[in-house]
Amino acid sequence: MKIKEEMRILGIDDCPFDKKREKFVKIIGVVFRGSKFMDGVLSTKVRIDGLDATQKLIKMVNKSSHKPQLKVIMLDGITVGGFNLIDIKELSEKTGLAVIVINRKMPNLKKVKKALLNFSDFEERWKIVKKAGKIKRFLTKRGKFIYYQNVGVDDEDAEKIINLSISRSDIPEPLRVAHLIATGIKLGESRGHA
Amino acid sequence: MKIKEEMRILGIDDCPFDKKREKFVKIIGVVFRGSKFMDGVLSTKVRIDGLDATQKLIKMVNKSSHKPQLKVIMLDGITVGGFNLIDIKELSEKTGLAVIVINRKMPNLKKVKKALLNFSDFEERWKIVKKAGKIKRFLTKRGKFIYYQNVGVDDEDAEKIINLSISRSDIPEPLRVAHLIATGIKLGESRGHA
Repeated sequence: MKIKEEMRILGIDDCPFDKKREKFVKIIGVVFRGSKFMDGVLSTKVRIDGLDATQKLIKMVNKSSHKPQLKVIMLDGITVGGFNLIDIKELSEKTGLAVIVINRKMPNLKKVKKALLNFSDFEERWKIVKKAGKIKRFLTKRGKFIYYQNVGVDDEDAEKIINLSISRSDIPEPLRVAHLIATGIKLGESRGHA
Repeated sequence: MKIKEEMRILGIDDCPFDKKREKFVKIIGVVFRGSKFMDGVLSTKVRIDGLDATQKLIKMVNKSSHKPQLKVIMLDGITVGGFNLIDIKELSEKTGLAVIVINRKMPNLKKVKKALLNFSDFEERWKIVKKAGKIKRFLTKRGKFIYYQNVGVDDEDAEKIINLSISRSDIPEPLRVAHLIATGIKLGESRGHA
């Protein structure tokens, strides 16, 4: 893969939601040139605890005018809208883009499994979790460990991409900014970490 | 006024809306360090063609956790949500911040007046337009003319601030990014210019 300082990365995050009052949640996508310059903002919505995130994200990416420039999709974990799981292999195949999943902590798969057991379609959801592949630990250029999964890009390149996407924060800019937008438009003011 | 390369600027823009189907429009505020780094996102909503924008913006700014760092509010014209006029003198006084209004073209005040004459409270609205003061032309560091109004900051400093807020676009970053967010979250993909 050709790694350029300003390669186009799409960072994706979901808005906060109130499960008691809402059925759908807005998903924000931010197109960044590396860690430097915001090119655009995309959005879609998915069902809270549904299983439509993979298809909705594929559609959002493929119909975007930014598609020809995009190289990488970055996700904050493999779920949005509660337990709406993203099949990252399918997302990568159907968009032709590399997918890198960022976790700030090592995900606790036992806890995830326990939560998913509450769903009648547990088998299908758990299959998507396992399909996402091995979680790797990486010490970023800022001296912090992050945990990632990758499809469509090898480990060495994924780590280069993570490093070039980081600016003054420990979180890659496309994800940090997607999170600021997702919380800011819903809560009146952005908060917390991606 | 102390002008610093990374002074905190709040750029404000409104979402697109459909007057036939909607009564309120979301307003997006983006906190930027000069033209460099996004610190946060604020939001509020105002009535389409209402007259509540000034108060809503004052509230949004004053309750924000970014308030102590903020120095300047940048607006894309003096209206949001159709003809919901912003009293920039009041906005500056009640927030204690400088306000700079950016126009990409010289506003046609005759056209504005004609449109405002359709409102029963024309006098009040027209007073806010006149109160916004003289519109000045400025050749930015990128060699493009922009037209601005300013309160709480003199012309020389306002022009320095406009220049430092510009990066690779002719539009100041806080306004460019506010516009990308406002259109992207509403239309599914950002478009056009602030």
